[in-house]
Amino acid sequence: MTQPLTTGLSVRHASRSGALQTVTSGLAPSHLQANLIVLPSRYAADFRLLCARNPVPCPLLAESSSPGSFSSLKSHLTTSTGRSVPVAADIDLRRDAPAYRLYRDGKLVSSEESRDIVDVWADDHVGFLIGCSYSFESALSSAGLTPRHITLNRNVAMYRTTIPLSPAGIFTGGTYVVSMRPYRRSEIERVRDITRPFVQTHGEPIAWGWEGMRQLGITDITKPEWGDQVLGLDGQTVFSEEDEEFVPVFWGCGVTPQNAVMMAGLEGMVMGHAPGYMIVLDVREEEVFDL
Amino acid sequence: MTQPLTTGLSVRHASRSGALQTVTSGLAPSHLQANLIVLPSRYAADFRLLCARNPVPCPLLAESSSPGSFSSLKSHLTTSTGRSVPVAADIDLRRDAPAYRLYRDGKLVSSEESRDIVDVWADDHVGFLIGCSYSFESALSSAGLTPRHITLNRNVAMYRTTIPLSPAGIFTGGTYVVSMRPYRRSEIERVRDITRPFVQTHGEPIAWGWEGMRQLGITDITKPEWGDQVLGLDGQTVFSEEDEEFVPVFWGCGVTPQNAVMMAGLEGMVMGHAPGYMIVLDVREEEVFDL
Repeated sequence: MTQPLTTGLSVRHASRSGALQTVTSGLAPSHLQANLIVLPSRYAADFRLLCARNPVPCPLLAESSSPGSFSSLKSHLTTSTGRSVPVAADIDLRRDAPAYRLYRDGKLVSSEESRDIVDVWADDHVGFLIGCSYSFESALSSAGLTPRHITLNRNVAMYRTTIPLSPAGIFTGGTYVVSMRPYRRSEIERVRDITRPFVQTHGEPIAWGWEGMRQLGITDITKPEWGDQVLGLDGQTVFSEEDEEFVPVFWGCGVTPQNAVMMAGLEGMVMGHAPGYMIVLDVREEEVFDL
Repeated sequence: MTQPLTTGLSVRHASRSGALQTVTSGLAPSHLQANLIVLPSRYAADFRLLCARNPVPCPLLAESSSPGSFSSLKSHLTTSTGRSVPVAADIDLRRDAPAYRLYRDGKLVSSEESRDIVDVWADDHVGFLIGCSYSFESALSSAGLTPRHITLNRNVAMYRTTIPLSPAGIFTGGTYVVSMRPYRRSEIERVRDITRPFVQTHGEPIAWGWEGMRQLGITDITKPEWGDQVLGLDGQTVFSEEDEEFVPVFWGCGVTPQNAVMMAGLEGMVMGHAPGYMIVLDVREEEVFDL
């Protein structure tokens, strides 16, 4: 990469051409990033309801304007005065994430990630964009609270939890997926305050501290389900529960829908972005959040 | 009572005059019923965010149009085309529930319920109305699925759970409260389908069956935290986990905010309706739900 990727469009073009193959954390600061889930149209109404009932892990930003549409999107984002805000011009849901995952009948097709989903996208597919917590990371960094995975140049750590989603039609048995960033206990209230206004990109944390970890049903912080380990890793980052300095802080995560598809054993071909490899949008934080 | 209470206004007037001292389940069929929580104004913004992040247990229907207002309300209800729908004319939040509960510094003031909150309502108080699952009971009854507590002329059974709310500002440590109605396993999908459209009055169940009960952290179905027992009670209603015929079905419950106030240890004077004794509104189900 020779050009710095400072806009959503430049990140999408780099993904589309195959030039970008990294996670998107830290790219195009202040532009909203989005999780993707692509479903057969018969599941679309239930999925909208799942999002409405679970807005913290599943904040719905936009969706295909009609079944089969991968480049024309209906936005659900509005300004504080209620004006609709388009999420992106020149977008291709099939190619604009750096990497994808495929599910058939609720099971991951391959542990290998796909560069695009052009060949599997069908006329009956509906794509949904879900808010991503990368969207508040530049605000945290500006406040001197840079997330550790950025400092270490790794993917954010993501975990399955035992917290049930509110079911919606076909979507039963799902649980929250969370992202985790370690902070000092003394920093948690500032971290809560900074991320609170980002209501459509998961907002403030849902749990924090070792007690919060246990409440979420997470048993081993060194073994994230997706992404990279950033706690208990090496000399620079090792700490134990006895070391009170740093504790895990957990946010709702837009990988939740992919987990919900697996838990519900959804029939047919479903696609999602590879966790950490997001679609970056044109819309900027200050357009839709009261910062 | 000599007049049948078939409208929201008649129920409110009967409560206001002191003539009505019963739970409101089954009254004024097809009119929306509402939970009440009244907070010092400094907590209002955090409470709105709590509702936005937890719409299944805390669907916000309306609130005081300004601090101190108990008879002028700002509605959050809309038709499917986005037109605002007023919740009620001629309303007095201080007297229109048949019974109230008072909390000081997060603790219940008395196990005795109050007939009104006229003396404790201050100029700084903001009232919030939250959707109630009584709103879908007439739909269940019309389908031949009359909730057992109506048949038995009791209050609905309500339970604390261990499912955490998504925190919002001052509101940390809260958990879902649920209402429970027993049904046959073979009836659950119909019950889900019938209650699903009632999106602002808790919608479809969040859990069902004995496994669902355990997932919610409820250990004894015969001991509801609020309301009356309707399972394992007597010859007519006794059944055990071995008897597969009936199982508990759980919905989000608008008592959740009162529990959240206690869990957060909120300072100052907070008031709520007595669980089961709702404020009945003018708005009818078919005005706001896609039935």
